[in-house]
Amino acid sequence: MDAVWFPRTDRVIDAAHAHNLTELEILALDADVNLADGHPRQDLTPGQRAIVDRMPQLFDVARHTPFEDLETRAHRAFLGALGQRLAPVGRGRMYSAYASSVGMDVVARCLAEAAPRVGLIHPTFDNIPDLLKAWSVQLVPLEEDELGARAIERAGALDAVFLTTPNNPTGHVVDADTLGEIAEYCAARDVVLVLDTSFRGFDTRSQYDSYELLDGTGVEYAVIEDTGKLWPTLELKLGIVVESRRNRLDIERAMSDILLSVSPFVLLMVEALAEDAAAGGFARLHELVAANRALLRGALEEVPHGQVIDNGTRISVERVKLADGLSARAMSDELRARGVHVLPCGSFHWARQDACDNCLRIALGREPETLRRALPELRRALATAAGPAVQSTA
Amino acid sequence: MDAVWFPRTDRVIDAAHAHNLTELEILALDADVNLADGHPRQDLTPGQRAIVDRMPQLFDVARHTPFEDLETRAHRAFLGALGQRLAPVGRGRMYSAYASSVGMDVVARCLAEAAPRVGLIHPTFDNIPDLLKAWSVQLVPLEEDELGARAIERAGALDAVFLTTPNNPTGHVVDADTLGEIAEYCAARDVVLVLDTSFRGFDTRSQYDSYELLDGTGVEYAVIEDTGKLWPTLELKLGIVVESRRNRLDIERAMSDILLSVSPFVLLMVEALAEDAAAGGFARLHELVAANRALLRGALEEVPHGQVIDNGTRISVERVKLADGLSARAMSDELRARGVHVLPCGSFHWARQDACDNCLRIALGREPETLRRALPELRRALATAAGPAVQSTA
Repeated sequence: MDAVWFPRTDRVIDAAHAHNLTELEILALDADVNLADGHPRQDLTPGQRAIVDRMPQLFDVARHTPFEDLETRAHRAFLGALGQRLAPVGRGRMYSAYASSVGMDVVARCLAEAAPRVGLIHPTFDNIPDLLKAWSVQLVPLEEDELGARAIERAGALDAVFLTTPNNPTGHVVDADTLGEIAEYCAARDVVLVLDTSFRGFDTRSQYDSYELLDGTGVEYAVIEDTGKLWPTLELKLGIVVESRRNRLDIERAMSDILLSVSPFVLLMVEALAEDAAAGGFARLHELVAANRALLRGALEEVPHGQVIDNGTRISVERVKLADGLSARAMSDELRARGVHVLPCGSFHWARQDACDNCLRIALGREPETLRRALPELRRALATAAGPAVQSTA
Repeated sequence: MDAVWFPRTDRVIDAAHAHNLTELEILALDADVNLADGHPRQDLTPGQRAIVDRMPQLFDVARHTPFEDLETRAHRAFLGALGQRLAPVGRGRMYSAYASSVGMDVVARCLAEAAPRVGLIHPTFDNIPDLLKAWSVQLVPLEEDELGARAIERAGALDAVFLTTPNNPTGHVVDADTLGEIAEYCAARDVVLVLDTSFRGFDTRSQYDSYELLDGTGVEYAVIEDTGKLWPTLELKLGIVVESRRNRLDIERAMSDILLSVSPFVLLMVEALAEDAAAGGFARLHELVAANRALLRGALEEVPHGQVIDNGTRISVERVKLADGLSARAMSDELRARGVHVLPCGSFHWARQDACDNCLRIALGREPETLRRALPELRRALATAAGPAVQSTA
């Protein structure tokens, strides 16, 4: 039951042969209960519904508005809704992409060309190290819970530091003090600082003005912003790469090899969605994620062999640590056989995968009803598996 | 007047410092008359208008339909409308991307990993050699007008052959006999064959069933299909990478590093647009391009110092060769100063740019009215510049 069978198929994707986390997520796209990917799959809110209902009109407005206006308006509305008031909107150093991963690919190319030895946060979603390695970037792990100037210094000679904040899957936020310390360290040592802030919209603690802080230190930076994790708009989304004024990364050129422009229609959608988010939509999203988190945590309370470990996280995924001796890979296989897709977390630990097969990642960007269907299966799987395993390690 | 000035700008993009053709196209996005890029900017037809008017309903259908169904339906409708009846739809070897250039980037990575010495058609749009070179692929030019097994053999040891057909900017089509000869040569020598067929929709002579032909030879191949040049849907589009059953390129993995899935909404749009195209939309598009081509050619008839050279082309751009001694770069700068943006063709000749500064590329995927506004400026610029230049080389 693990395979997606295509009619008259030449190829079968199955979980045992998945190359990476995304391939496991692809398996879950049409699953009975998909709690695998961190994309937003909840219902539209009334505000979002009204925007979707206006799509034909937005299309016409987009057709007849200068592209530069649309792009500036979308950037201003989105970054403004996230507290990034001093983001350099309209100054020729913000590049729109079809998705944050396209921006990531461009930044990875630029790092390979101009700053090839990179300290990368650990753990993090595996497509980041995979894309960087594909471009022949050399990676040094920076442990998330030790982040600071001292840890970066200990990592040895680096050309760049790459942080995901809030981090996926842990929800860890690099606070303003720590980011300031790191940015000043990087500025002093001529190290480029790259941030992936795709989950920023979920956590107000990450919404201090990063651009004010970064530009204040003079550090060379690139920040990858993302609308794609927030609104259930069927992948109509935008990645934005923002660069510092002085920058050795030639993002402009690498981006122009990939695209002429994003969709003006999507820019107008993003502006409308960001305005809706600022006017209460984000608060509503935070309530949904918090309610789903409470559902999951409540269900786990009665099951001693799985527990949440990221107590402060607010992003739209949650890690569940299994009892010692249990394999997250085996547990996710078992859940998948019951129609419930989640991710085993091993691959997030890109620098030492074999050591970290004890967590599941559960997506929360869903209707509560979807979680309610999954939680009994999760509890049953944990209860069944935990007994002998706990005994064996007791 | 060549620069796009941003308010309180940190950076100015200008034509003199453009890195590539796309940056010149970006300059033209909000121009008075944009005949620079080959993207479709004509008005919606009534059939397309009806699809845009149904966007909210399509959004809802996409939300509630299995992704695999949407993708298979979009692929079948689009490839079917292009005569590709034996394309391997639904067999797990067609990968959807946000755009053909994202597919190109993925194929470039795979070539670098598994087939790094590539014979590439010459001339062609510069983002193809630029992306391949960024991934450290080694390029050998294959002259478009000499294509065949013998020319490929003369190019020396190759791991792959990369052809754009119909080619951009020339409109040159690799016919079935020539493709068969090349595919058999590649199959016999274990050479991968890559095709970029982004402009296939404009020319029925390129709509013989490439998949029947390729699969019949057993060649390892990748084909990049593209909806993005055909319909004026504001960059709501799809690139599709199709691979042969046996293939050394790990497209599945490289694609999964870039994306989880394209938009299900865009898949449904593509299906509807392809059905409309098959039911007369493509014929109407061909009439529009032919009418614009006739307008341009008619205007040039009265100006002896610029002439079309791709007599058989049917794609949505046309080359205009200038009189000897005239610089296409200087001419496009002059036209730009008059508000009319076109492309100088030097950069298409990626293997020997300095030798080829004598052609302009004029986009035809526009309303005829847009051309009518540009043609007097083109004629005036040619008439003014041609005199002394022609004298000096007479």
